[in-house]
Amino acid sequence: FLPLFKIKKISLSNSVLGISASSQSYRIESDTFGELKVPVEKYYGAQTVRSTMNFKIGGATERMPIQVIRAFGILKRAAAEVNKGYGLDPNIADTIAKAADEHSGGSLLKQHFHWKKFPTGHRRRNSSKLLNELFSSTIINPLFVCSEIGAQKTLWLSGQYNLDQKSSNDTFPTAMHIAVAKEVHEVLLPGMQKLHDALEQKSKEFADIIKIGRTHTQDAVPLTLGQEFSGYVQQMKYGMARIKAAMPRVYELAAGGTAVGTGLNTSIGFAEKVAAKVAELTGLPFVTAPNKFEALAAHDALIELSGAMNTVACSVMKIANDIRFLGSGPRSGLGELILPENEPGSSIMPGKVNPTQCEAITMVAAQVMGNHVAVTVGGSNGHFELNVFKPMIVKNVLNSARLLGDSCVSFTEHCVSEIQANTKRINSLMNDSLMLVTALNPHIGYDKAAKIAKTAHKEGTTLKEAAIKLGFLTSEQFDQWVKPQEMLGPK
Amino acid sequence: FLPLFKIKKISLSNSVLGISASSQSYRIESDTFGELKVPVEKYYGAQTVRSTMNFKIGGATERMPIQVIRAFGILKRAAAEVNKGYGLDPNIADTIAKAADEHSGGSLLKQHFHWKKFPTGHRRRNSSKLLNELFSSTIINPLFVCSEIGAQKTLWLSGQYNLDQKSSNDTFPTAMHIAVAKEVHEVLLPGMQKLHDALEQKSKEFADIIKIGRTHTQDAVPLTLGQEFSGYVQQMKYGMARIKAAMPRVYELAAGGTAVGTGLNTSIGFAEKVAAKVAELTGLPFVTAPNKFEALAAHDALIELSGAMNTVACSVMKIANDIRFLGSGPRSGLGELILPENEPGSSIMPGKVNPTQCEAITMVAAQVMGNHVAVTVGGSNGHFELNVFKPMIVKNVLNSARLLGDSCVSFTEHCVSEIQANTKRINSLMNDSLMLVTALNPHIGYDKAAKIAKTAHKEGTTLKEAAIKLGFLTSEQFDQWVKPQEMLGPK
Amino acid sequence: FLPLFKIKKISLSNSVLGISASSQSYRIESDTFGELKVPVEKYYGAQTVRSTMNFKIGGATERMPIQVIRAFGILKRAAAEVNKGYGLDPNIADTIAKAADEHSGGSLLKQHFHWKKFPTGHRRRNSSKLLNELFSSTIINPLFVCSEIGAQKTLWLSGQYNLDQKSSNDTFPTAMHIAVAKEVHEVLLPGMQKLHDALEQKSKEFADIIKIGRTHTQDAVPLTLGQEFSGYVQQMKYGMARIKAAMPRVYELAAGGTAVGTGLNTSIGFAEKVAAKVAELTGLPFVTAPNKFEALAAHDALIELSGAMNTVACSVMKIANDIRFLGSGPRSGLGELILPENEPGSSIMPGKVNPTQCEAITMVAAQVMGNHVAVTVGGSNGHFELNVFKPMIVKNVLNSARLLGDSCVSFTEHCVSEIQANTKRINSLMNDSLMLVTALNPHIGYDKAAKIAKTAHKEGTTLKEAAIKLGFLTSEQFDQWVKPQEMLGPK
Amino acid sequence: FLPLFKIKKISLSNSVLGISASSQSYRIESDTFGELKVPVEKYYGAQTVRSTMNFKIGGATERMPIQVIRAFGILKRAAAEVNKGYGLDPNIADTIAKAADEHSGGSLLKQHFHWKKFPTGHRRRNSSKLLNELFSSTIINPLFVCSEIGAQKTLWLSGQYNLDQKSSNDTFPTAMHIAVAKEVHEVLLPGMQKLHDALEQKSKEFADIIKIGRTHTQDAVPLTLGQEFSGYVQQMKYGMARIKAAMPRVYELAAGGTAVGTGLNTSIGFAEKVAAKVAELTGLPFVTAPNKFEALAAHDALIELSGAMNTVACSVMKIANDIRFLGSGPRSGLGELILPENEPGSSIMPGKVNPTQCEAITMVAAQVMGNHVAVTVGGSNGHFELNVFKPMIVKNVLNSARLLGDSCVSFTEHCVSEIQANTKRINSLMNDSLMLVTALNPHIGYDKAAKIAKTAHKEGTTLKEAAIKLGFLTSEQFDQWVKPQEMLGPK
Repeated sequence: FLPLFKIKKISLSNSVLGISASSQSYRIESDTFGELKVPVEKYYGAQTVRSTMNFKIGGATERMPIQVIRAFGILKRAAAEVNKGYGLDPNIADTIAKAADEHSGGSLLKQHFHWKKFPTGHRRRNSSKLLNELFSSTIINPLFVCSEIGAQKTLWLSGQYNLDQKSSNDTFPTAMHIAVAKEVHEVLLPGMQKLHDALEQKSKEFADIIKIGRTHTQDAVPLTLGQEFSGYVQQMKYGMARIKAAMPRVYELAAGGTAVGTGLNTSIGFAEKVAAKVAELTGLPFVTAPNKFEALAAHDALIELSGAMNTVACSVMKIANDIRFLGSGPRSGLGELILPENEPGSSIMPGKVNPTQCEAITMVAAQVMGNHVAVTVGGSNGHFELNVFKPMIVKNVLNSARLLGDSCVSFTEHCVSEIQANTKRINSLMNDSLMLVTALNPHIGYDKAAKIAKTAHKEGTTLKEAAIKLGFLTSEQFDQWVKPQEMLGPK
Repeated sequence: FLPLFKIKKISLSNSVLGISASSQSYRIESDTFGELKVPVEKYYGAQTVRSTMNFKIGGATERMPIQVIRAFGILKRAAAEVNKGYGLDPNIADTIAKAADEHSGGSLLKQHFHWKKFPTGHRRRNSSKLLNELFSSTIINPLFVCSEIGAQKTLWLSGQYNLDQKSSNDTFPTAMHIAVAKEVHEVLLPGMQKLHDALEQKSKEFADIIKIGRTHTQDAVPLTLGQEFSGYVQQMKYGMARIKAAMPRVYELAAGGTAVGTGLNTSIGFAEKVAAKVAELTGLPFVTAPNKFEALAAHDALIELSGAMNTVACSVMKIANDIRFLGSGPRSGLGELILPENEPGSSIMPGKVNPTQCEAITMVAAQVMGNHVAVTVGGSNGHFELNVFKPMIVKNVLNSARLLGDSCVSFTEHCVSEIQANTKRINSLMNDSLMLVTALNPHIGYDKAAKIAKTAHKEGTTLKEAAIKLGFLTSEQFDQWVKPQEMLGPK
Repeated sequence: FLPLFKIKKISLSNSVLGISASSQSYRIESDTFGELKVPVEKYYGAQTVRSTMNFKIGGATERMPIQVIRAFGILKRAAAEVNKGYGLDPNIADTIAKAADEHSGGSLLKQHFHWKKFPTGHRRRNSSKLLNELFSSTIINPLFVCSEIGAQKTLWLSGQYNLDQKSSNDTFPTAMHIAVAKEVHEVLLPGMQKLHDALEQKSKEFADIIKIGRTHTQDAVPLTLGQEFSGYVQQMKYGMARIKAAMPRVYELAAGGTAVGTGLNTSIGFAEKVAAKVAELTGLPFVTAPNKFEALAAHDALIELSGAMNTVACSVMKIANDIRFLGSGPRSGLGELILPENEPGSSIMPGKVNPTQCEAITMVAAQVMGNHVAVTVGGSNGHFELNVFKPMIVKNVLNSARLLGDSCVSFTEHCVSEIQANTKRINSLMNDSLMLVTALNPHIGYDKAAKIAKTAHKEGTTLKEAAIKLGFLTSEQFDQWVKPQEMLGPK
Repeated sequence: FLPLFKIKKISLSNSVLGISASSQSYRIESDTFGELKVPVEKYYGAQTVRSTMNFKIGGATERMPIQVIRAFGILKRAAAEVNKGYGLDPNIADTIAKAADEHSGGSLLKQHFHWKKFPTGHRRRNSSKLLNELFSSTIINPLFVCSEIGAQKTLWLSGQYNLDQKSSNDTFPTAMHIAVAKEVHEVLLPGMQKLHDALEQKSKEFADIIKIGRTHTQDAVPLTLGQEFSGYVQQMKYGMARIKAAMPRVYELAAGGTAVGTGLNTSIGFAEKVAAKVAELTGLPFVTAPNKFEALAAHDALIELSGAMNTVACSVMKIANDIRFLGSGPRSGLGELILPENEPGSSIMPGKVNPTQCEAITMVAAQVMGNHVAVTVGGSNGHFELNVFKPMIVKNVLNSARLLGDSCVSFTEHCVSEIQANTKRINSLMNDSLMLVTALNPHIGYDKAAKIAKTAHKEGTTLKEAAIKLGFLTSEQFDQWVKPQEMLGPK
């Protein structure tokens, strides 16, 4: 018994990040096209090397998202366990499960790793190599993974290690859904919740600050700053509802559909069991897709989710735009909000706080809108039994989820949570406003009220000053009748 | 008491469609800017005339969608009835209700209309004029309605006819939601259901037709034509689920929020009651929006719905693309489907049936994707207490709903329902296929099976011919072992 | 000799606008599918009726753009004249040319029309019917025109009237390019030029008004209002350059490519001559497309133009946003610009001028961005020798050109031309600003300058007040050293 | 004179790629907010560290594009040289130039670097630190760079090292344009040219292969495979023309506009000279932007370029779709093209070649369309004197250029160049086609020709067989009259 190859150090992370290795020792791997050099310390095999030769597109940033690679680990483990029940040698199953765990979990970035006991013999050797390759070959350019892995399936069929996972046509979309669902639950929704909570906290904190409203970007009747923020709270609350409303279809897994959706070469019950196992491993309510043909040939579920994120992008764009305009100044803007100063601004120019967090999250919003169109175009271009835009679709969906989730956290921590109301400025604008004149209608009539407003506008005075000057009422009456706090709701 | 005005003939439809009237008699109307001529037979007043002068943009096709105008009628009627409970003179309420019914209902398309007895008395005259104007002024360019109507509100405040409907800031978004919800229920969902049902019928009809599958646009293992269509059925089924999942937030009405969302100048309970009344009038589960600030300042609910329609657009793009390719030919295409011949094609070229219905619905799909971006951009650009892109947003959302609903019906009636399977061609492709060789693996081993396939490919023969020629099996064995009908599911 | 049919009144405009005729007298027309009733006063024939039966999608607003119909008239006329040189009976050619002129020109909307002398005999009758039908059948739903007209071509081949125009595959894209080029020259560019000129005029008018700059929406160093507007001028200037840069490829005509681009059944030289004739008729530099395969199968030229319009949309969005924010107020906004009051605003609320023109043109911008995506999706989906998204593409491109052109005019006339600078407000913001402190650096050093700014910010005073209070300089020195007019350029 | 610092080892690449350093020794840096730890081997300073703390968005893939960093190096060098003429100490200028070269050039990827002798003296230390920081701080999250660097400017002003480069408001957009123009010339255009040339070569190679045409995805009249490819050639040729038509505005540099576009604190002539120097250094025709206000506040030039790339995306989508459909099979597709087998496909399934290169480039096309919408949204959202979506915009534009350029090369090398025509299949489809019957019209009349076609279609025979069977002509006559080679052009 000899270990097939003993690996001491791996640097999968390098592959992920596309850093060209400086390694100078290679082993020879081969596929049906011939021999290829593989850096000795790499897991991956000929297929992966060939892929990197054929798809030099986009450089380091265009790698398969790490989340998809991890999701493959989860799927592999689930399949290994389920396949025990379909005759897979338990030892092999456990080996796969262990490798899969390393694959999906934190140990991916471990620096040291080796196979202690591994089956010998050509066939097993081949299989283990393939196992490695399958795992590592997922760490490749999103632009070709779909086909690339597909190419492995026939070889793979000859071994027992890939029982019931005969095709990347169903395993890849399964990994897509696992990866996306996890990102939604681990990054997107927590980020949105955090922003929602911070906005809600501010809405309460600002409940009694009455300010001028603005419609058509023009002065309008008053509301409280808390009410204004409550609109943002509602947007985030509904945003989370939107994301959640899209999830039931994301929880459906294609696994078990194999090459065209029929489930050829898989066992009755495998699809249901593997979905149940994935659900168990992840704690998310995955189920097997009721129609595998749709699950392979369309990615409507992810387009739908992308659409929900697109809506959230519109929400955060609106919120962040409001905040940066309300915080504009220090002297020549609206100046109602005091934004936190996160970076040293101009040391000579106090009060000039660039709303960098607003800028970051609105850039994210624009990116999410763009990603959504990419997903839409890719999603609409499936043909017959397979949509082949899978890697591009999942990359954009994951990117949107991550960017939105992360930027919600950043926006919360470095901006929203620390926003202060500039009550002095708010009151000043409020009291100077002409819109309060409507409160005088019932007391002095429409015509006199209008005259007061016109006079104040023309002469640049306050309503009160104009009213008294015109002799329509006393200072006391003005204060008694013009009460913004009574203009904040229905009666 | 006399009815304020007696309506005999209307020609609103002309206004809607932007046809320039040839009328040569005018009445004089005025607003605070001066006098204006209004065609004598028109309902509308100075505000509308001024708008058509100030916004000459886009011509006849850029009118406010008729559905929004009708929705205003529903809202007006609901408000009139609710306002009886808040002190509105019942006679006036009934007059408003009657006019609103004309407005929202069929009589809108009546060809003739004129003012028989114009009410005397400044106030009544003014009020009726305003009522007319408010109703008719909605029949205007979507590019300015929002502000235009807004301008009326102050004048309106002086009369009692507009009780609790003080601002287009809440009434317009209310009408948007009513119009959209009705279009979804009356056009979009029925159309989608129809297409779903026809596809399902075909899926059953084609349940036993075994055909070659295609992945990466390349030959793959078999499935039934019914299975292939079942994927389309699922897409439409989920499409309807997606639309419905977006509706709860569309059912929320802004009415009662007035100018900035506070509900200033409205009565406690009005918002809830008017939503209930609209629900009663329409039979749809409308409720008052829990947060009016969000309901005025954002249109996330319509962006979300647009996103759902965008997903449906991707679905129909995929389905129609498949159908046109599967129906391509008559000789040089895939030729598996026989599409109905709706228009006289080439009389000399039999069998050349242009897939015009596929072309129409895929054009619709592209348009819906474009509309969605317009909605997204507009929806993200709200500022402070109001999003002013309302007319553009509702126009695109209604357009998408209508186009999708209509084209689903057209596609169903003139294409899907009449699709026939070209079983001869399907069988021929199936039997010529090399993909069936995998069925021989368990019987003669991988190596021999591969050799058969290679020989057949090289020599252009069938698998069976190659197998027999190579002497690996008999004709009977081939027929016994290679059974596509046993390759259609898990075992 | 009897006139084939005598038409007294036509109402093509009705067809264009999709108004269902109330006509109750029909003539019977037939195609290879059977007989159909056609309203007696209509030009169109069986093909058109059948189309309206098969494509009930989208209602009245989804008609073929009138510009395309007119462009077909131009093409018909050009072809008739060119075909004289290829043996077409001059009488027939002249009849076609005359009809085409009516078709393309103003007489389309004439109410009365008839054929005085028209050839008799079955064959000629058939031809004239087809002529009518071809002309009128273009007045149909953009969602199917492409195929519909295509269906006519074979019948058409039997007559001589369609010499060298055998296929809508080349005539339709030709009409697209003619229609678009004319819209660009007649509506889009003149509108943009108008806006450019008005902005330039304002830039000069405001050349000496020094104001506070704003970056990151925060106060920054000064510039003149004229300089600020000069940026808008540049955007519009380059916008026109962008549109023009896309035109050379729009001027290329597909005519002469016939069914697949080879020019089968046309004569050598026809393509070049018909393009030259169209150029002569329109005064635009049309040429024959050097590669007809590309001209039929792709619509890159219109995608490119749409992209240029998309850029212009971004420009006007930016300009109009700036203007509405700079004009926000009257009391609680930035208030640097006074926008014209076009519609009666609130009579009781002087100074509240809703920036309705800004709102209209930004809605247009959003629509153009959406149209662009529709064009992109349609344009990317051509297959083999034909892109069949033609009607949808041309509709969106024309819509964008019209909306942008019209809204530029409206925005110019009703907003930009009448903008006034609120110099009092501008000066006030300018003088209150803290950003001017940098001018003191060379005189009193960085540390003292910073201290002045901090004191002013903290105490809410002006720089001058703080400076004097701190005793760092005199009032005279401040006025001498802090000169915004010397901060407006390099030295 | 002592060199300010001696550079031995750098590890900038790590920062670029976002790999967390394992370094355990830090130096202390400080900004006005306090002290921060900086890994001892890093160039960057407090500002950068603070940024990475404040903007944890999107992880490693969301870094500032390396091209922008390199472009900053070019700009720094140009500015240093120009500033010699404005009084900058030549020694310092040379030091900056040298550092800038390291920055822009290959040594960026050197693995080792450290500070041997850290300069003493507060000022020098501070300056060198700032120099380092400015250079390295560009290596940061695109989501915040714009503001971040802005924050440095004031400190920077105190030194002479940043003469005339006072603000990231003009330097960042300058670097954007340099980076993009270089990417266009180094990656995009060469890639497109390569694809163009390969397609042209194939067009010539296939010049004599006559094949069936397809319109509406249905059989149509013939053309040569060379003609079909000539359409693709034209698309790529015009694609390059489109890119080039957008470049004049990209060559315009903002440098010299400083904070708001006025050029405050810069010297007369600096803008022109620095643009000339950048032109000299890059060999590209950069000029100073004629209007700096537009150059800072808008990014229309990049939206325009993105629009041109969007058009190219549509072109490659069309071309690659055609190729994968024409290459579909091996038995059940169109099968006219034989695509190269790049990866081991199914070893048992000969002839099944997944069109992976088509899949990659169409995914790129979808991504570019999405990127374009992100750029459009960002580009339309500038406010006043600055558009703050710069990092997002440049990231997407560079990504599109790179992806398109790279995928054109990959598609060329691994697909187009190796495409073979399946002449046997092409001839078979051609000869079986019914479309050739039109050639018989002049000889036997329309009616008989139609009858032949109908008989052949009904009985599944060839035209020739049907013609002879019907007795309308002889075999010799058929061969004489039906000559596809005479149907390829006008006569």
